[in-house]
Amino acid sequence: MAQICIIGAGSAVFSTNFVRDLCGTESLWGGTIVLMDVNKNRLDIVHTFASRFSRETKADLSFKRTTDRRKALEGADFVICTVKVGGYEPMEAERRIAERHGFYRGIGDRVSDYYGGVGAYHQLKFFLDLARDMEEICPDAWLIETANPVFEGTTLIARETKMKVVGVCHGHFAYKDIVNALGLDHESVEVHMAGFNHCIWLTQFLHSGEDAYPLLDEWIENSAENYWKSEMYLKGLPWSVEQLSPAAVDMYRMYGLFPIGDTLRSASPWWYHSDLETKKRYFGPTGGFDSEIGWKTYLKLLEKSQRKMKKLVSKPSASLTRAYGSAPSGEQHIPLIDAIENNKKAVLQLNVPNKGAIRNLPDDVTVEIPTKISARRIHGAQIGKLPERLTLYVMMPRILMMERTLQAFLKGDKKSLLLAILNDPRARSFEGCKALLDELLAQPWNIEAAAHYRW
Amino acid sequence: MAQICIIGAGSAVFSTNFVRDLCGTESLWGGTIVLMDVNKNRLDIVHTFASRFSRETKADLSFKRTTDRRKALEGADFVICTVKVGGYEPMEAERRIAERHGFYRGIGDRVSDYYGGVGAYHQLKFFLDLARDMEEICPDAWLIETANPVFEGTTLIARETKMKVVGVCHGHFAYKDIVNALGLDHESVEVHMAGFNHCIWLTQFLHSGEDAYPLLDEWIENSAENYWKSEMYLKGLPWSVEQLSPAAVDMYRMYGLFPIGDTLRSASPWWYHSDLETKKRYFGPTGGFDSEIGWKTYLKLLEKSQRKMKKLVSKPSASLTRAYGSAPSGEQHIPLIDAIENNKKAVLQLNVPNKGAIRNLPDDVTVEIPTKISARRIHGAQIGKLPERLTLYVMMPRILMMERTLQAFLKGDKKSLLLAILNDPRARSFEGCKALLDELLAQPWNIEAAAHYRW
Repeated sequence: MAQICIIGAGSAVFSTNFVRDLCGTESLWGGTIVLMDVNKNRLDIVHTFASRFSRETKADLSFKRTTDRRKALEGADFVICTVKVGGYEPMEAERRIAERHGFYRGIGDRVSDYYGGVGAYHQLKFFLDLARDMEEICPDAWLIETANPVFEGTTLIARETKMKVVGVCHGHFAYKDIVNALGLDHESVEVHMAGFNHCIWLTQFLHSGEDAYPLLDEWIENSAENYWKSEMYLKGLPWSVEQLSPAAVDMYRMYGLFPIGDTLRSASPWWYHSDLETKKRYFGPTGGFDSEIGWKTYLKLLEKSQRKMKKLVSKPSASLTRAYGSAPSGEQHIPLIDAIENNKKAVLQLNVPNKGAIRNLPDDVTVEIPTKISARRIHGAQIGKLPERLTLYVMMPRILMMERTLQAFLKGDKKSLLLAILNDPRARSFEGCKALLDELLAQPWNIEAAAHYRW
Repeated sequence: MAQICIIGAGSAVFSTNFVRDLCGTESLWGGTIVLMDVNKNRLDIVHTFASRFSRETKADLSFKRTTDRRKALEGADFVICTVKVGGYEPMEAERRIAERHGFYRGIGDRVSDYYGGVGAYHQLKFFLDLARDMEEICPDAWLIETANPVFEGTTLIARETKMKVVGVCHGHFAYKDIVNALGLDHESVEVHMAGFNHCIWLTQFLHSGEDAYPLLDEWIENSAENYWKSEMYLKGLPWSVEQLSPAAVDMYRMYGLFPIGDTLRSASPWWYHSDLETKKRYFGPTGGFDSEIGWKTYLKLLEKSQRKMKKLVSKPSASLTRAYGSAPSGEQHIPLIDAIENNKKAVLQLNVPNKGAIRNLPDDVTVEIPTKISARRIHGAQIGKLPERLTLYVMMPRILMMERTLQAFLKGDKKSLLLAILNDPRARSFEGCKALLDELLAQPWNIEAAAHYRW
C-alpha cells in the first residue's frame, strides 16, 4: 500500500483536509502517512488529530510523525510539500520594509500571497533541497508541490531534478462562483481553465455542450451592477467576492478570457493596486484578498483554524468528525494519489510541464491545465493558443518574472534581484531600490540569502 | 546590370552617401538608379546632385527620378527604403503631447529616435505596403530596410511577405570609438556585435587574436574618469561621446557585455532617462542624442545637410566631389548590393532572421549580427548564447515590445496600444494613459491610424 509523506504537516488547514480525504478514500486504506514538520508542537497536534479522526471514521491508516525531513522520505511513494519556510512573519516584515520604501503591499504587490520574501529564496531553496533528497532517498516517488510559488517551484524542480513533480492548487474551483451566479446546474457545465498557477483563464465554458460565454456576457450586462450592490458582495469574505468583482469583468474585457481564482490578484495590472481605495473599487469593500484588510482576515482565519484544532485535540472526548465533517475537502491531492496508486481514471486541474499543451507558450514551463489521469500517468489537455493580447501583456511578462526569479536564485545573482525590483512599476530610483534590497537582505532571517546573492 | 531603387531618396544625408558609394563602385557601373520621393522639390535636388556627381567622377550610372512609388519598383533588383513617413514634425508634436501627460521625451523615451509616432503606425504601414507592392512588381528583388524601426520593420516584412528583406544600419561602427580610446590598431582588432538593431552587444572583442576585454576593463579602471573630464568628452557631439559614456560602462557592469552604438540609448534602463540632469550624468554634457539638446542638434544638422546640398546644386559651377569628397561613406548598403550582384565575398553587420544564430533567442525574430556574403547569399555568424541577465532584462523585454507593436498594428488593436503605454514606467493611471492615447490619435496626421486601431 502507498506511503504518503506530508512535508509541512503542521498546517491545520491543509492537514485536516488531507486527513479527511484520506480517511474517506477506502482504496488508500492500509497505507502509511508520514507527517513531517519542524514545529514539533504543531506536528503532535496534527498527529493526534489524524489518529483520532481515522479511529472515528474506522479508516485503516497508520499515521507516523517525525521532525526529520530525510527520514520522512524513506519509503515514500508520494510526497506532498505544503511548506512555508519561516511562516508568514518574515514575509510580513519584508512587506512593511518595502512599504516604507514606497512599495504599497510590498514588492510585486499582486503576488503578496506567494512571493515568499525577497527572491523567493527560502521557498525555492527548500523545494530544491527536498527534491534532491528525494532523488536520493525515494527516486520513484511523486512530488506533489502545493507550497507557493507553485509556478516557479514546479518549473524549477522539473528543470533541475529528475523527480516527477506535479503542482496542485485549489484556486480554479472559483469558477463555481460563476456557475452559481449564472444559476446553472453544475452537472451540465463543462469548463477548461488554462495558464500558469494563479494565472489561469476560462478557455472553454460549455453549458449542455453549448458555449456559455454569452450567458456570462449577459450577466455582466444585466446583473453585475446589482450584484456589486448586493449584501452578498458587500459583506462577503475578501476572497469569495473577487471572482465576480469589477476586476474580473475588466480583465475579461481587456484580455478576452475570464480570469479565474487567484488570477484576479496575481495577474491583474498595476493600476488595480495603487492604493486601498483603488483596490476596493476593483475587488470589493475589503480591497480583496491581498489588501491590508483581506490579508489580515486570512491570517486570522489561519490562526483560528490552528486554535480550533488545538482545542479539539486537547479534549479526548470531542468528536472530530462532528467538528470537521467527513465530506471530501475538494482538494485534489488525495484524489490524484488515489488515481495514480490504484490505476483509476480521474480528471484534475494540475500544474505540469507545458510540452505543447498551450501552443503559444514555451514547452519548458509549467502550465496549469485540465488533465486526465489514466494508466498511472497524467495526460494534459490540448488547449491550443491563448489570445494574443493576453499572451503578450500577461503570460509572457509572468514567464519573464519566473525566469528572472529562477535565474537569480540558481546563479545567486544579486544584480538580477535588484533589476527585478527596479522592474516594479512603483520603483522610482536606482539608489532607492538598491537601499531597499540591502535592507531586506540585512534582516536576520535572510543571513543565508544575503550570502547566496552576490554582485 | 543592377537596377537599384531608392525609396525616400529626398534625404540629403542618406542619398549623398549612396551616390558617392555608387560612383566609387565600378563593378556597379552600367546600372540604373531610380530615385523616388513624394517631395518633388527634394527629389529634383538629389537627382541633380546625383547626375552631376556621377559626371564629375566619370561614373557610368544612369539616375532616374519619379514620385510614383509603384513605377519606381519596375525592374528593380534592389530596393533601399529610407523613408520617414511625414518627416519628423508629427513625431515631435506627439512627443510634446506626451510630455504634457508626464512622459518626458515621449512614450518609450529611450526610442525617441525611431519610434516614429504612436504604434509606429505610419512606418509599419509604409513598410508593409512597399513589400506587398514588391511582391507584385519585383518579387525577386532584395528589400534593404534602413528606415526605422528596423527591428520591427524587418521582422514584420520577413513574417508577413515573401520578400527577401535585410536591415542595414551604421550604428555598430561606434565600436571604433572603443578601439580608438584603447589606442589599438584597427587592423588587428576583430569584433562581433550581436543582438537586435539598436540593441547590440560586443560579444567578441579580439586584439591580435586575444581577448581584448581586459584592455577595456583596464581603460575603465584607469582612464575613464579622466576621459569624462576631457575636452573631447565635454565638447563632443551628443552622439559621438555616448559610446564611452558612464552609461556604457554602467550597462556593461550590469549586463555583462559592452553595449554598442544606439544601444546606449535604446536599450538602457529607465533610470538613466528620468530628466535632463540624469541624462547628462549618464550620457555627457548634452544628455546624449535623445535629450532635448542632443536631438535638436541632430535635427539642425539634418537641415544643414539639406541646405548645403540645395545651395551646391543651385551653383552649376560648384564641384560636388570637392564638397563631399569621394571616399566611401562607410554605409553598408552599396557594398551589400555589390557583393550580391557581382557575386563577391563581403563581411557586413546585417539584420536578418535569427534562425539559431543567437541560440537563446527565438528563431523568427530579426537579429543584427556579423554576416558573410558569398554565392549571392547572406550567411549569419553563429553567436551562441547571450548572457542570461542581459537576455532576461533587455533582450526579452525588447522582443516583447516588438511583438506588442506588431500585434497591435496587424490586428488594429487599440487595447494593445493602450496597454503598451501603460507599460511605460512613467505611466501613473489608466485614465491618464487613455487620455494620452486619445489625444495622440486625434491629431490630424493620425486620421488613418485612428480608424485603424479599434477597441
